[in-house]
Amino acid sequence: MPTDTPQPKFVLVRPQMGENIGAAARAMWNFGLDRMCVVAPRDGWPNPNAVAMASGAGRLLDEAQLSPDLPAALSDCTYVFATTARPRELTKPVFSPEGAMKKAAQLIANGEKVAVLFGPERAGLENDDVARANAIITVPVNPAFASLNLAQCVLLMGYEWRRQIEQVPEEVFELGKADWATGQDVEALVAHYEDRLTEAGFFFPPEKAEGMKTVFRNLWSRMRLTRADVQLLHGVMRQMVRWKNSGTD
Amino acid sequence: MPTDTPQPKFVLVRPQMGENIGAAARAMWNFGLDRMCVVAPRDGWPNPNAVAMASGAGRLLDEAQLSPDLPAALSDCTYVFATTARPRELTKPVFSPEGAMKKAAQLIANGEKVAVLFGPERAGLENDDVARANAIITVPVNPAFASLNLAQCVLLMGYEWRRQIEQVPEEVFELGKADWATGQDVEALVAHYEDRLTEAGFFFPPEKAEGMKTVFRNLWSRMRLTRADVQLLHGVMRQMVRWKNSGTD
Repeated sequence: MPTDTPQPKFVLVRPQMGENIGAAARAMWNFGLDRMCVVAPRDGWPNPNAVAMASGAGRLLDEAQLSPDLPAALSDCTYVFATTARPRELTKPVFSPEGAMKKAAQLIANGEKVAVLFGPERAGLENDDVARANAIITVPVNPAFASLNLAQCVLLMGYEWRRQIEQVPEEVFELGKADWATGQDVEALVAHYEDRLTEAGFFFPPEKAEGMKTVFRNLWSRMRLTRADVQLLHGVMRQMVRWKNSGTD
Repeated sequence: MPTDTPQPKFVLVRPQMGENIGAAARAMWNFGLDRMCVVAPRDGWPNPNAVAMASGAGRLLDEAQLSPDLPAALSDCTYVFATTARPRELTKPVFSPEGAMKKAAQLIANGEKVAVLFGPERAGLENDDVARANAIITVPVNPAFASLNLAQCVLLMGYEWRRQIEQVPEEVFELGKADWATGQDVEALVAHYEDRLTEAGFFFPPEKAEGMKTVFRNLWSRMRLTRADVQLLHGVMRQMVRWKNSGTD
């Protein structure tokens, strides 16, 4: 059974190679999409090459809607996007992948049924297919080399869909198993280093000592140390002192 | 010669299959990126399978930087991102692809040299590789099915890079060869339809006529007609009248 997550339906129009259908299923499921529709696949249905390629996402093929033509595929849809690489002589809104999936998310939140059309590998959608869509999606590729294949195009739309619904933060900090060091931890580390380095004659000449200490303190702060880092750095200094006191070299 | 467009270097670390290296080159060039670095490729270099797969983007392989190990690959870099699928026990900032490429664009605009690391197909980057990076990039995939391959990961980073530098509008309107209809064009169309439909007895009963006319006018406005659409609709009505006057059926 497909998940009941609200989502657009991805419609592969007259796809040719089974491998590409399977790769498209994998690309969809990577981003949590599992409503595939296959319109008039060239090599019939089910397609063993598609099944072989889809490993791990084969369920999407088993549950795919099979339609004889595009009107049948779209009979339950209220808004349709067509992905096209080249401009058409048709008057239509043209969305970026981001803009399109943002609009799709809004429409779906309002209970609409949204489809995204992907054309056959060689030539893409025909104008007659595009004329059935409410809007066009164009991926901003290098004009000198626009060679996205079917599964790559599906992948980018899936990625943008997930970005729109998941609101991924642009940056977070992963702490591993660590905790951030507190101000007190850092102060103790600074004091430890200053004491030993003073003993060792590091802060020389005396008129530069304060400036050198400030640079050092700034380094620790800028690094944002964890407690484990602080322990490691204490250990480094203790060991240097131990080594010095052992008198060997 | 590589283009002189400022851009991050994409570093494939110990890649295994030549096909994947070639597909990565295509994915990069789709988004205008042409600085590839290959670290210790398993099957040697140059790799004929990579060349065969890269068709159209083979120049990137010819011009790729070949490095024996990761430190050599990164010797000229000031900021390094590592792409990883699974969390590591390392304390690091973690970026979304969007956040990472936004930061990369800022750093590069300031003259920094930025690299993005991609791990070998099977296991991804080792912790030792990730420890050489300043930050991590994680793609927000379906936790139940995270199976992006090397070229797909390169594709998504290339896509986000281009999005950051190109500022693609989320929606534009493509007019084909058409011009929008003016208010005057639409008024003339409304008048033509109202006149003929009145003659034909369409606006019935009389107390509903005004409401019906408003619905009609609203339809034309909502559609945003082009001049060509207006001509077509005039033609439809003229032909219906001609047909009626011909007396045949």
